[in-house]
Formats: sequence, C-alpha cells, structure tokens
Amino acid sequence: MGGDHGPPVVIPAVLRAISDLPATVRFLLHGDGAVLAADLAKHPGAAARVEIRHAERVIGMDEKPAQAMRRGKGTSMWNAVEAVREGQAAAALSAGNTGALNGISKLILRMSVDLERPALVTSIPTPRGVTTFLDVGANIDCDAERLVEFAIMGEAYHRAAHGAPKPTVGLLNVGSEEMKGHEEVREAHRVLREGKIDLDYRGFVEGDDITRGAVDVVVTDGFTGNVALKAMEGAARFINAELRNTLTSGLLATLGAVLARSALLRFRERMSPTPAAPFLGLNGIVVKCHGGASDRDFAMAIRLAADLARSDFSAEIERNMRRLPDALAETAAPGPADPAGSNGAEHGAAPQGAGE
Amino acid sequence: MGGDHGPPVVIPAVLRAISDLPATVRFLLHGDGAVLAADLAKHPGAAARVEIRHAERVIGMDEKPAQAMRRGKGTSMWNAVEAVREGQAAAALSAGNTGALNGISKLILRMSVDLERPALVTSIPTPRGVTTFLDVGANIDCDAERLVEFAIMGEAYHRAAHGAPKPTVGLLNVGSEEMKGHEEVREAHRVLREGKIDLDYRGFVEGDDITRGAVDVVVTDGFTGNVALKAMEGAARFINAELRNTLTSGLLATLGAVLARSALLRFRERMSPTPAAPFLGLNGIVVKCHGGASDRDFAMAIRLAADLARSDFSAEIERNMRRLPDALAETAAPGPADPAGSNGAEHGAAPQGAGE
Repeated sequence: MGGDHGPPVVIPAVLRAISDLPATVRFLLHGDGAVLAADLAKHPGAAARVEIRHAERVIGMDEKPAQAMRRGKGTSMWNAVEAVREGQAAAALSAGNTGALNGISKLILRMSVDLERPALVTSIPTPRGVTTFLDVGANIDCDAERLVEFAIMGEAYHRAAHGAPKPTVGLLNVGSEEMKGHEEVREAHRVLREGKIDLDYRGFVEGDDITRGAVDVVVTDGFTGNVALKAMEGAARFINAELRNTLTSGLLATLGAVLARSALLRFRERMSPTPAAPFLGLNGIVVKCHGGASDRDFAMAIRLAADLARSDFSAEIERNMRRLPDALAETAAPGPADPAGSNGAEHGAAPQGAGE
Repeated sequence: MGGDHGPPVVIPAVLRAISDLPATVRFLLHGDGAVLAADLAKHPGAAARVEIRHAERVIGMDEKPAQAMRRGKGTSMWNAVEAVREGQAAAALSAGNTGALNGISKLILRMSVDLERPALVTSIPTPRGVTTFLDVGANIDCDAERLVEFAIMGEAYHRAAHGAPKPTVGLLNVGSEEMKGHEEVREAHRVLREGKIDLDYRGFVEGDDITRGAVDVVVTDGFTGNVALKAMEGAARFINAELRNTLTSGLLATLGAVLARSALLRFRERMSPTPAAPFLGLNGIVVKCHGGASDRDFAMAIRLAADLARSDFSAEIERNMRRLPDALAETAAPGPADPAGSNGAEHGAAPQGAGE
C-alpha cells in the first residue's frame, strides 16, 4: 500500500517479477484486500503465485516513526515485517515511510548486531559498476566497532546483490596515510588491516573514491555518510540543471541537444539513484524501495529482495561478527589513546593541516 | 616560485592584476631574483608596482609540512608570510605546497582563534552564486565552539569576498529538526540560534543544500567538510566523463555535441572549482591558490587577496569572537549532555533512523 503510488505501482511490479523470477518465488501482498483483489483479478496468471493478506490500516507516508510504531500493529507494513519473523516470508519489501519501516523492523525482528538502529546502505554509480556505501544516515555516533560492523555487513551485501566473489572494502577518511582522521576511523583501520576479519580490506579511501570505484564497499559513520550522499545528489542535480540551461542557451546548442537527446536520456538514467536497499543488521531481510518508485523500480527492488533471500548473506555476516570481539581485543593492546605509535613526522600532513 | 608552473604563471598574472587593480595595489615578489628580474624586464610597465625580494631557496611541492617548517626560514614562501607579520605586505599569496603554507603561516602569524590550525574554506557554485563552505579539511575534531568560530569566520569572509552585506549561515547536519545530529552540532546550533553572535543564522542545512545555495555559508567540521567536498568533486568528475562518453556514443549524439560545443565549454567553466581561498583564523591574510592554476586563475587569486586586504574582515571576526565566551556560557546552562531537553517524540525521525 505504501509509496507515492501504492497498488497501481506494486501490482504491475509483482506481475513483472512473476514473469522474470523462478516459479519458486511467491508473494504475500499485505494491504486493503478488496483493492488488491480487484487489481489482481485483471491478471489471472498471478493468482497461483500471490496471496493477499488483508490489513485494516496503513501507515501514512508523513507519520512520525515513533507514532507509527505505537499504532503500527495490524497495519500492512507491520504485517509484512511480522511475516518475516514468523518465517512465512523470506524478505519484506516496502515503498512506504522509511523511518516507520526502519523502526518497526527493529522492533519486530530485533538487531542481530550491536547497532542503535539498522544501517542504511546505498549504491553509487562508478565507471566500472557501483560502489556500496554505508551507513548513509541511521547511526550518527559510531565507534570503531560499529565501523567494522558496517564493513562486514556491506561486504556481504555487495556480494549478494552484485555477485562479486570477494568485494574490496575501504574506510572513508580525509587522506590515505595512517595518521589521518579521528581516533575511531584509525582504530577501525587497525582492526580491519590486521586480517582477523575475513574481508579484502584496502585501507583508507577519500570522498572522490566513492564515484571512482576505488573499492567495492565504502564504509563510514551515518553522519558523514548522509552528508556525503546528499552532497553528491545535490551536485548531480545542480549539474543536470546547469546542463539543461546550457543546452537551451542558443540555437546551435538547442539543436545539438535535440540531436543528442536519446544519448542524454540514457545518461540521465545512468545517473539516477538505485531504487532500493536493505536495512542491514536485522534478524531478517527488509528492503526499502524509494517512495516515488515506478513499477520498473519496484520490480528491481523485488529482484534484490529475492537475490538477498537466496544468498548466504546473513550467515556470512554472522560468521565475521563472531570474529569481531577477538579482533577488537587484539588491537586494543597498544592503548586506546595511542595514535598508532609510529610515523609521527607525518602527523598532520595536508589536508589534515600542517605538522607542528 | 610555487605551484606546478612557477614564474611563467605568476608574472603574467601580476601583469593582469596591475592593469585591473587600483594603482595603490603593489607587489612584493619573493623568489629567485635573477629569474624574476629577467621575466619582469620584458614588461617595463611593471617595475613601478613590483619589488623583487630575492630568496635563496624554495619549498618543494612534495615536501612534508613538518620538514618544510623546520627548514623553511629564508625560503620564498617563508619570506612572503613574514612580510605580512612585519606589516610590509597586507596579504601573502602562494600557489605552493598547501600543507607547508598552512604550517608556516600558523608558525609565523600565530592563530587569532582557538583552532588547531587555520581553517580551509572553499566556494561551491550554486544556481544563484556561490556557497562558502568550511572547514574542508584542516580541523578534524571540532567541538561546538570551533563550529561557531567557523561560522563567524566564514560569514565575514563571504561578505569580504562577495560583497553580500549580510550573508546567511547554516550548520551542516543530517536533518533540519532540532534533535538531529551529534551533540557538537546541536550545541553549536543552540549558541548560534540564541543571537548573541551577530550573524544571520538560518539553522541546520543538509548535504544537498550546499549546491542549492540555501544559505551563503555552510559550516561543518574538517572531517565531514573534506569528505563532502571530495565527494562532490568526484561526482562532478564522474558525470563529466559519462557525459563525454554519452555525447560520443553515436553519430547523432556526436553531431549534437559538436553543435553544442561552446555551450558545453561554458558549462565546464562554471563547474570548475574556484582557484583560491584564504586560510582563516590567522593574525594576517594568507591566500592559497591551487597548484595547477593558470595565469587567469592566479590573477583571480590576487584580486581575492586584495579584496580581503581592503575589507574590514579581520576586525569583524574579532568583534564576533569577543562575543563568543558569553554566548557559550549562556547555552552551557542546561548541561552538556542534555540533548536540547524537549521534543523527544521527534527523536530519531528518519534519516537518523526510527524512534524507539
């Protein structure tokens, strides 16, 4: 029922997915039974793969998360997540209220890792594919342990979603030298570099490495991640608007734009953000599709949910999480305040500023 | 002597500036006396406005800042900054080693504010002009007081550089509600909102507001600022490359690109970063021009240095800095750990995540 469009987008997306995905993939549709049944009746092929679960109420797109959680029981969103907890569904998918879905998922499924709330992950286009980028806004204050948890979850997610056998991982920082950045990021670097966690860690990366595709997975705290993501989105929007102005600024430019039209449409397509992403760190798979999704977007989100459900991703995360206490204990040895101990001459090299 | 090109860029830039700026603006050129004299001799008009100060040594572009500071005495960079301290120059300008210039400036001029090192400021294009954005990498760990200092310096800088009588100021955060973000940013928000500091504070802004031009000055810590700046630069570079691929992807698109060529060049020009910015927080004006600057860029940097030197900007910063202790004392009352006290229902609304 969620998103800006509701069933008129969800039903066609399910029909698309039915024809694309194996027959073993089946759907529980939570929402207004009469509305859903009427829409589905037009597509006789769907009945065998779809089951309608009636819900009396829905959560509004503008409802505050805290309020949605208090009054959420019995809503279509609540029931979808509960079906995961009860093992009736392998994944829950919604285009509804993000904060409410995040909160209800945490409440019903509980966190599998020691995070305040499920991490938000996104995919950024690069010349060679996509970068998996997290946390983009859920966990504001992050210590080294949380950053390592993001690395573990992001790596497993990237493999499940993109089929890369051994994704590379980088930690976002203001420079590539050991001494750069604040203590949390330097400690996470020491833990990951040590190799007790099973992932292909490549060290520090910088802001422009996200779109460069320097590594497959870029890890940061939710504050920095949210600002960086929105800054990139803002830059893309600004450039798009400027380009439109430029290409209508004169007769020749306009003619040029007309001739290049189909290429420019493909370009815009490539630049648009991916339509869906999971909440990471839950005991179960929940995928959030963006509110303005088209039926094509929603079908892609269904495919992602199915890919995650069929992958080994939860078990892989659990395996690495069990290695974490040991890895943390090891690096704690030189003392938490020791800034890696060596290489003092480099301390404060630009852009952190000049050494003293 | 600095930058990727040295005197072949600096001398033509000085000649441009001589013809553009009032006759009262004069130049001290620090560097290899013979080289500079030979270059200047070709331009007889320059002699009256330019004085050459010979320096035996220069600081290399790749020299570590700490090393540059130890061995800096007598270099052209050192002498340029020292001329500011001695009142012989109203501003120092260099396209050389950023970290070395930052460190030498701090060493010779000393900080006028309680920062670890001079703040780095940059200008980001927007539909209605530019956004002044700081700190973009000098001060990694920032408490509320430092964020307020950035606001004071950024506001005065924006007025001096762009002639806006009363620039608007925003604090970068992950949402616009009072409860969002970490404690440092929320405390700085309380101090600025209170109005004891004389500036037009507009509250929290988000990452995409930087290129939207929601406010004139966007304030953040050096970690977030550096990541956001590089993320935007990376996004712009990626989009540029994709656009080039798109517009050469077929006969029609290529023909379109040819017709739109001059418009696309103007577009690229608009997107390129501003060539120079001051180090903020010093007892004196030091402007850093980027290393790859053309003579046109360097001439713009000279104009900026002259604008700052003729403005009231240092006195304005000092005036507001004197109000800071009082403003901080006032807001400290509710206790440093109190997250603003009220409005708990909103706590944790997306994107910070769902409430609990």
